[in-house]
Amino acid sequence: MAMELPVAVVTIATAALALATCNSAFDARSRPGALSGQWASGHTEQFDYETRYFQQKVDHFGFAEDVTFKQRYLIADRYWNHNGGPILFYTGNEGDIVWFCNNTNLKHLNYFTSEQALADFAVLIRSLKQTIPGAQTSPVIAIGGSYGGMLAAWFRMKYPNIVVGALAASAPIWQFEKLTPCGSFYTIVTNDFLKSGQGCAESIKNSWDAINNLSSTAEGLTFLSRTFHLCSPLQASDVASFKSWLIDTWVNLAMVDYPYEANFLQPLPAWPIKVVCTFLKDPSLSAESLLQNIFQAVNVYYNYTGNAECLNISQTATSNLDDQGWYYQTCTEMVMPFCSDGVNDMFEPVPWDLQLFSDTCKKDWGLRPRPDWITTLYGGKNISSHSNIVFSNGGLDPWASGGVTKSISDTLIAIVIPEGAHHLDLRSRNDKDPTSVGKARALEVEYFKKWIEEAKNALVSL
Amino acid sequence: MAMELPVAVVTIATAALALATCNSAFDARSRPGALSGQWASGHTEQFDYETRYFQQKVDHFGFAEDVTFKQRYLIADRYWNHNGGPILFYTGNEGDIVWFCNNTNLKHLNYFTSEQALADFAVLIRSLKQTIPGAQTSPVIAIGGSYGGMLAAWFRMKYPNIVVGALAASAPIWQFEKLTPCGSFYTIVTNDFLKSGQGCAESIKNSWDAINNLSSTAEGLTFLSRTFHLCSPLQASDVASFKSWLIDTWVNLAMVDYPYEANFLQPLPAWPIKVVCTFLKDPSLSAESLLQNIFQAVNVYYNYTGNAECLNISQTATSNLDDQGWYYQTCTEMVMPFCSDGVNDMFEPVPWDLQLFSDTCKKDWGLRPRPDWITTLYGGKNISSHSNIVFSNGGLDPWASGGVTKSISDTLIAIVIPEGAHHLDLRSRNDKDPTSVGKARALEVEYFKKWIEEAKNALVSL
Repeated sequence: MAMELPVAVVTIATAALALATCNSAFDARSRPGALSGQWASGHTEQFDYETRYFQQKVDHFGFAEDVTFKQRYLIADRYWNHNGGPILFYTGNEGDIVWFCNNTNLKHLNYFTSEQALADFAVLIRSLKQTIPGAQTSPVIAIGGSYGGMLAAWFRMKYPNIVVGALAASAPIWQFEKLTPCGSFYTIVTNDFLKSGQGCAESIKNSWDAINNLSSTAEGLTFLSRTFHLCSPLQASDVASFKSWLIDTWVNLAMVDYPYEANFLQPLPAWPIKVVCTFLKDPSLSAESLLQNIFQAVNVYYNYTGNAECLNISQTATSNLDDQGWYYQTCTEMVMPFCSDGVNDMFEPVPWDLQLFSDTCKKDWGLRPRPDWITTLYGGKNISSHSNIVFSNGGLDPWASGGVTKSISDTLIAIVIPEGAHHLDLRSRNDKDPTSVGKARALEVEYFKKWIEEAKNALVSL
Repeated sequence: MAMELPVAVVTIATAALALATCNSAFDARSRPGALSGQWASGHTEQFDYETRYFQQKVDHFGFAEDVTFKQRYLIADRYWNHNGGPILFYTGNEGDIVWFCNNTNLKHLNYFTSEQALADFAVLIRSLKQTIPGAQTSPVIAIGGSYGGMLAAWFRMKYPNIVVGALAASAPIWQFEKLTPCGSFYTIVTNDFLKSGQGCAESIKNSWDAINNLSSTAEGLTFLSRTFHLCSPLQASDVASFKSWLIDTWVNLAMVDYPYEANFLQPLPAWPIKVVCTFLKDPSLSAESLLQNIFQAVNVYYNYTGNAECLNISQTATSNLDDQGWYYQTCTEMVMPFCSDGVNDMFEPVPWDLQLFSDTCKKDWGLRPRPDWITTLYGGKNISSHSNIVFSNGGLDPWASGGVTKSISDTLIAIVIPEGAHHLDLRSRNDKDPTSVGKARALEVEYFKKWIEEAKNALVSL
């Protein structure tokens, strides 16, 4: 929360039901063919808030299930004008209540959808406005980043009666069906490495053959296990996971390529890809030497603090708790096609294969995704009749591939932050911030003021 | 369907699941404290259409239930321009598939909601546009009356990506919570009778005491049974139902007070309330004489054809099949407060008692209504950010009480038809139509053309 307007209500980790609470707790992350998600802590500042609970319906869209759950939300009203001051409503994206996820079953998972999360938001806000003195006429603005950014945008689209506008930061609302070429995501990742050091992307590109060759022998597997300081020795059957883990690492680095030391997914130096690339200058080395350098590079991500005793290929961020949550979402609503071709990107060619993906979902969850549902429900590219949404995207962020990067109308505004990684604008102000993010934040606040003004005028004219 | 534009697709009785199919099959009707709904046939013209089926998801908002049902829809493409011509999409309001309702259980009823119906519409339209040659870029306009009118308006609000606009005829979208005074509905009913003959409303007003007095004795009950030609002798415990039946009759007459012979709920003469009032000129008669006149009046409604051998107080329209469907909806989402006070209306005073209503729902269905859900979901009076909806209402129609009768913006248009009863504008053109309904229809078509034009322009600019 880096906004400079009076912040009144911040809600985190809201969604339908214990389980669905996970809904807004994920930050989307990618893997070819499948997405994973991890929760990330890493606030660098303390915020002043109060934790409260709201008795929320488990199922908003039916009446047979009478169960409720205690939805946790946070209130920060230190700077709030208690006489109708505007309310900023943060749509999710924290995650320390995800242990709920581990105590559930498929029946409850059924309520784990974006629609239930939006309904949770609507019911909660309506209740807050009815019960908090001075909030009755407060205009509410939704704010979110990543998956939470999609929720913020969709919330304004579906409940314009509840929020006067939304800031959707790094929200890949077009990363569905064929709205975006499936390869764009990995092309952006690759460009980040191309720009950050000579030989860097090419070294990574060459690493896959090196791994494939080495992992075909027992000695090679041992070499890889030792070189990468793996916590468990690599088996031949782990090679695909090992490569996925590396891909996730490069993707994550692209997402958090911030201009200052930060701890979003991992503690990292400023411009971490530049640091990584100092180890990857010579793509023409032998397989062994190249992979020793790859380890040094990866180690920047996993061991910047120097505390890691070994590396675990089933873990790519601080906490791994809720991978399963986002995976469930990709197997239901959040079907995002990804592909790589090894030409426009530095990865092995992997086409998008919906049938294979669907079969895997069926095996893992007993259900199949509905890849056209999100675009049917939220409009795909046909959203021009909506209003008051700012879509911000970072030029370095792979998720910009599915983002709205050109304004659609006078009230559906795209802001691009060329030097920004994943929702940099939502982070606290920093002396090392590029000028572009400062300008973006100022513009966002301008729109907030405009929406608040409009709302107050509409109220007066009633 | 009285529109003069080329009609391409007409869909009826669509909704999620066999059961939820009932969803759009009801026409709202009122009773103090509780609403009932009945299906009505009564097209006076034959329309040329083809019946088709679409494999539809039972539950759009969850993934655990993989069941589908065959959603029936009708296609009428005789006048359709097969090269991208506009499509009029009729949102429900027929009902001969309601037998589905009788084969269900509470679990399936859970999918019987307006949200599932809208999702059905969206998925169906998207599929039709993908599969019907020439329809890919066709602009679609939603049209509906009564409950179907609400669905049409809400459909445009929630899925502006699917329909370019909506005609919501006699759609009481504000008959919820306190958006409308609960007594307005019965005041309009009363005004219809006040205007239709001297002594008419007062006779009805006086009838309640007469019934109360007579029904307190066995002789009085026998008198009532004989006078009203009841199929089953009236018991003391039936008196409340008897009065409800009379109330429904007056309400229904107000809804179908059309300027020509029609058969919407029952076969009726032109301006039926005027005919009814010819029997109700003297409100000062004795209880017995007054009630004999009330019977004559009621008989206009139930026996215009002269074929009824006796009157059945559990039936108020041609078919009674789906009363239970609408009753379920009022016990869940469609919580419409009604009241009467005997001062501004001709009925006995009955306050709106949500607790009592909720308790009755709990007893009958095992669940309680959520009276604030519809306004949270669809915005209540805060709908000005939406666009391209025409709300038409008839001045004689009690449902105008909850309708939008003043334009909200340049694109949210109210049309009032002073001489119109319940969605007269959707009926076929008739020589006896008042001028106002002809003007309304012409204006509606103007807006259709405007929306279609806008959609075509938007397509060109892509």
